[in-house]
Amino acid sequence: MKPNLIPNLIPTVIPFLAAPGYAHTQAWVQALQTAMPEEQIVAFDDMTDEAKATCKVAIVANPNPAELQQLPQLQWVHSVWAGVERLVADLGNTDLKIVRLVDPQLANTMAEAVLAWTLYLHRDMPAYARQQAQKKWQPREYVAARQRTVSLLGLGALGEAAARSLLQAGFTVCGWSRSPKSVAGVECFNGENELPEMLAKTDILVCLLPLTPDTRGIINASMLAQLPQGASFINFARGAIVNDVDLRASLESEHISHAVLDVFDIEPLPMSEWHWQYPHVTVLPHCSAPTDRKTASAIVAENIRRYRLSGGLPQTVDIARGY
Amino acid sequence: MKPNLIPNLIPTVIPFLAAPGYAHTQAWVQALQTAMPEEQIVAFDDMTDEAKATCKVAIVANPNPAELQQLPQLQWVHSVWAGVERLVADLGNTDLKIVRLVDPQLANTMAEAVLAWTLYLHRDMPAYARQQAQKKWQPREYVAARQRTVSLLGLGALGEAAARSLLQAGFTVCGWSRSPKSVAGVECFNGENELPEMLAKTDILVCLLPLTPDTRGIINASMLAQLPQGASFINFARGAIVNDVDLRASLESEHISHAVLDVFDIEPLPMSEWHWQYPHVTVLPHCSAPTDRKTASAIVAENIRRYRLSGGLPQTVDIARGY
Repeated sequence: MKPNLIPNLIPTVIPFLAAPGYAHTQAWVQALQTAMPEEQIVAFDDMTDEAKATCKVAIVANPNPAELQQLPQLQWVHSVWAGVERLVADLGNTDLKIVRLVDPQLANTMAEAVLAWTLYLHRDMPAYARQQAQKKWQPREYVAARQRTVSLLGLGALGEAAARSLLQAGFTVCGWSRSPKSVAGVECFNGENELPEMLAKTDILVCLLPLTPDTRGIINASMLAQLPQGASFINFARGAIVNDVDLRASLESEHISHAVLDVFDIEPLPMSEWHWQYPHVTVLPHCSAPTDRKTASAIVAENIRRYRLSGGLPQTVDIARGY
Repeated sequence: MKPNLIPNLIPTVIPFLAAPGYAHTQAWVQALQTAMPEEQIVAFDDMTDEAKATCKVAIVANPNPAELQQLPQLQWVHSVWAGVERLVADLGNTDLKIVRLVDPQLANTMAEAVLAWTLYLHRDMPAYARQQAQKKWQPREYVAARQRTVSLLGLGALGEAAARSLLQAGFTVCGWSRSPKSVAGVECFNGENELPEMLAKTDILVCLLPLTPDTRGIINASMLAQLPQGASFINFARGAIVNDVDLRASLESEHISHAVLDVFDIEPLPMSEWHWQYPHVTVLPHCSAPTDRKTASAIVAENIRRYRLSGGLPQTVDIARGY
């Protein structure tokens, strides 16, 4: 029986499974249902036993693996997040295929965040805020954008979009990726060997890497020491990519002048953590590129429609690589 | 005798005259001398009586009018600043022509400042800073740039460059000018009659107007009341364009949610002023678009070279209009 005949013969539902206690399940169910009126989208808790027995695809937001195990026919899951390190850890040893969200709108929003907080550092906003608190009137020396090198760790969809925005704003842009890439106007580096050369000329380092076994803790004392004195750092990726103790030491020694951190090992960031009150750290509550439920739902709908028609899946996550 | 013969017959010097106590006179003399090695640039204090008697052009940075009166042959002054309201007030009743700095680099720097502090407001940086101080983890609702209308008061060289940067970043952009203008992608308004229509749809109002008798105090209670509830305001022009009492009242009533102020009636802003500690005001020390001494000197040099060759002046300031 061809997959494209299934929806006509057996009524199926597509469940949405989120992390325990997740607050926006119904909002997602509604947005997904609106995006694909031809399907029946339900929360996992609302599935009948028959639906569980026949379900082949699920839409997920860091789901409880125990619930996924109650779907014996499940072949693949579509994540509504771009970062799937938790899914890979939970499902890497099973036969389940993982599809992650690749939303051009998400790349635009992230590129905007990279530009916004790069300009925040470039135009000395943290220093001017400290001066205001001290009622101190002191214009700082202006440095032209072309004299600032902004380096992106990660040149996927997010990194490329960020590079374009930074170039438009006049910055000198470098980018680093695992495998060779070429982006117009960007000085591209790849592999471990070429990283030192890029770090040595970086004024603002922006991390957009996926969290994988290879990138966990990759930003450590040795890497930070390769940046020039006074460089600054933006992390819009995942907290665990950074060795937090090393970052703090680098800030304390004033080798790194400022860090903008949107992601942390534990989120929400516990009240007891040092970052909150550290004068040269800007703490953000994982707000750099929020998923747009509407555009994300449209992309998931399109992928599921193509699957219904052809039986083919969108590009799935490479478990070994982790993204 | 034709002006182009003067430099060959009589050795002349071009003086640089700044405000009393100005710290960068020698730096300007040096930069200007480097930009025009064919002329002899000197500080006013270093002029001989003969040089004073023959000098026809001076380069100025808010000079002391009493010093200018010691130059009986003076025909025109070239300001190294773009804002010339003080020169116009001091010299408006004399025959002296005023040329102000029109530096494309200045327009770029200002456009960058407009983009940087627009993104600062757009991405809720003031709110996130307050949350960090309270150790509060709370992502705010994301609004796409195209849903934000940024309106520019003033569509001269600075306004046009700012509009282009804002459009590239995805914002919806309006612009207002005294006389009709047309800028690609910008909804343009002109004259007093069309101002209310623009204000009514503005989320972020950016002031780039010159200070003239017409614009003094133009941003007052009535104008601020025409902005939607929660709009914010950026002043990168001159402090006196804003009625400071009205602005404060509008902030206190929370009609205006935040103001970024780079310019003030008295600068440096006195320690006693309310702005320093007001939580919804960002105080900047007149740093939005510092003059680049090198590019400015090259432009002044080019204008003086043309004058030497042809006797013609660059476009001079319209005293009645004030810029």
